[in-house]
Amino acid sequence: MKFTIEKSDFLEGLNHVARVIAPNSLFEILKGIKLELSSNNLVLKASDSLVSVEFIIDAYKDDKEIITIEEEGQVVLPSRNFIEIIRKAPTNLIEFESTDSFIKIHSGKSEFNIKGYDAMEYPEFPVISRENSLKLEATVFNDIIRETVFCTAPNDQRPILEGVNFSLKNKILTATATDSYRLSRRQVVLNDEDAEKEFNLIIPRKALTYFQRMIETGGDEVEIFYENNRIVLYYQNVVYTVLLISGNYPNTEKLIPTMFECSFTANSREFFNAVDRISLMSREDKDDIIKLVVTEGNLEISSQAKDLGSAVEELQVNSKLEDDSFEISVSGKYLKDAVSAIASEEIVIKFSGELTAFIVQPSDYHRDIIELILPVRTY
Amino acid sequence: MKFTIEKSDFLEGLNHVARVIAPNSLFEILKGIKLELSSNNLVLKASDSLVSVEFIIDAYKDDKEIITIEEEGQVVLPSRNFIEIIRKAPTNLIEFESTDSFIKIHSGKSEFNIKGYDAMEYPEFPVISRENSLKLEATVFNDIIRETVFCTAPNDQRPILEGVNFSLKNKILTATATDSYRLSRRQVVLNDEDAEKEFNLIIPRKALTYFQRMIETGGDEVEIFYENNRIVLYYQNVVYTVLLISGNYPNTEKLIPTMFECSFTANSREFFNAVDRISLMSREDKDDIIKLVVTEGNLEISSQAKDLGSAVEELQVNSKLEDDSFEISVSGKYLKDAVSAIASEEIVIKFSGELTAFIVQPSDYHRDIIELILPVRTY
Repeated sequence: MKFTIEKSDFLEGLNHVARVIAPNSLFEILKGIKLELSSNNLVLKASDSLVSVEFIIDAYKDDKEIITIEEEGQVVLPSRNFIEIIRKAPTNLIEFESTDSFIKIHSGKSEFNIKGYDAMEYPEFPVISRENSLKLEATVFNDIIRETVFCTAPNDQRPILEGVNFSLKNKILTATATDSYRLSRRQVVLNDEDAEKEFNLIIPRKALTYFQRMIETGGDEVEIFYENNRIVLYYQNVVYTVLLISGNYPNTEKLIPTMFECSFTANSREFFNAVDRISLMSREDKDDIIKLVVTEGNLEISSQAKDLGSAVEELQVNSKLEDDSFEISVSGKYLKDAVSAIASEEIVIKFSGELTAFIVQPSDYHRDIIELILPVRTY
Repeated sequence: MKFTIEKSDFLEGLNHVARVIAPNSLFEILKGIKLELSSNNLVLKASDSLVSVEFIIDAYKDDKEIITIEEEGQVVLPSRNFIEIIRKAPTNLIEFESTDSFIKIHSGKSEFNIKGYDAMEYPEFPVISRENSLKLEATVFNDIIRETVFCTAPNDQRPILEGVNFSLKNKILTATATDSYRLSRRQVVLNDEDAEKEFNLIIPRKALTYFQRMIETGGDEVEIFYENNRIVLYYQNVVYTVLLISGNYPNTEKLIPTMFECSFTANSREFFNAVDRISLMSREDKDDIIKLVVTEGNLEISSQAKDLGSAVEELQVNSKLEDDSFEISVSGKYLKDAVSAIASEEIVIKFSGELTAFIVQPSDYHRDIIELILPVRTY
């Protein structure tokens, strides 16, 4: 294996694939990055065995030669030092040559000889059938992830809740996440002909956060091929293979209330900032609890922390009530997360009782998003 | 105690004094910030019992009223939440009123009631005699700290080496720091009439890093009043009181070699970058060892790491040798630290033997700075 490559293009790929590497992987070889050089491109591969990524660097970009290929081949390099060596290379051209298990890296007057892993030992990435796929605009997919992934359950709770449930039925794509204290659901109507199909998958949080980072700045489309327990995602020159979470995601449809005894509409930023301030007085408590009292045209937000003191703030809101006032206790953090996810100028919050889950939505319903939060019992 | 204050001025002072607070202080009250409001200013105080700081906010700044004082007084506030409450206040004017041990903070429609500490319990800061003092330009003092403080010994080694030794004799101020593997010494000739005096003090690293952060952007002078075991430093509207490290600092003068068998002059940036690259191949080793081989007009920098591989780079240098070649092993990190501290376009490195300490200096000797580094025995 022998080639010369532009430093910046090489680094971009290395940094991308290195993100999935688990530094304390049980498999020594998965701490490395695999380089596969063929006649027209270089493929960088990395994996933590649940999420695997390939980054393809074409030899030519817009007729400019990025890689000068002298001899094809494969090597696996230790990721940690290798990226730093490339990053700190003194010139913009990196010469690369492998002999046995050693790799020689030349740049200007500096020369490195790095011990690699045996490329034959690197596991093959699974191949997926190309039968079922779905195309999504990258910006839409990015929105869906942002709006749901924060509601997944933390590690070491119920594994099935550590991912986002994506289901497709009647051309409606529904993404749902819940940690059992709150839930976020976003629906999108698809016009693609592939949307006639049906699926029900649970994509692990970890994979979604990689996708999010990859597509946050770009346009284009993602194409997702799916099987029962696996998806393969294509985006520009990157391919992710992801092992799905197996099991049946709980039916959450019936949790969403439809009858309300109180609701109010508020400016999102004003509401967020007030909750943020009042939460300061409850931070000693693990549960970060604040109290909301809705009256005619007014919302009072308050908190009490035994050792610290108390805080109170009033906000003008547009309210509807059955009684004179409605009172509820809730996690300040959950409220702030919901408002952030909705990212709308105004929000509406609808309550069906002091002890039942309530809904946060954009006041103009311009996207089909629902945030559901369980209140806190304080007595 | 009752006053109204501009948010930004208040925050600047709070953030400054909060830096010295030790969050796990043995003394509960030292986790707080003391506010002393008199007829013409507000003084903020904080301390970790070794370093104490006062930040003075005058009621008027350039004829503009910063503080509207209604009733003088003193309170001690828990630092953690308090600064966040001010930072997140909805308006630029903060109203402040204390009643018994509660403090009411008003801003716009938000109101906080915070439980404070008893101000009578807050320890008095020690008073120092005004007999002996020294004035230094803030930029010079900042340079001296930057050039020496990185050589102090890490915590829990010899306490006396955890500070920088400042001594004044014959109008020469000498700052010395050593962790016993390397040493940094900077000398400055003073013209001040106070410089006729003599002193020998050890200022703890922690205090010096606070000073450094305070003066890094500003001009002006610092004035330091000193006694046997204490200094008080005045800078603009800030006063630091520092408990010195007691004991006799070792005499390091005799450690600095004067006869050399090899030396070379190199471009600082080229040398630094080459050492930085080659060190990548020795990072698994705790000691970060690289090898230098000086020959006529050439420097070879190399490293070997058993499990990783090897690296080598050559640099054109201006060298002087007694023999055909000179070889030495040294910590890459120490070399880089020394070059950074010297901050000169070219450096000269002078060796008096393969196993004795060597010197790094600016090649034009434009400042009186010496970096001394012990080599590593590799056999």
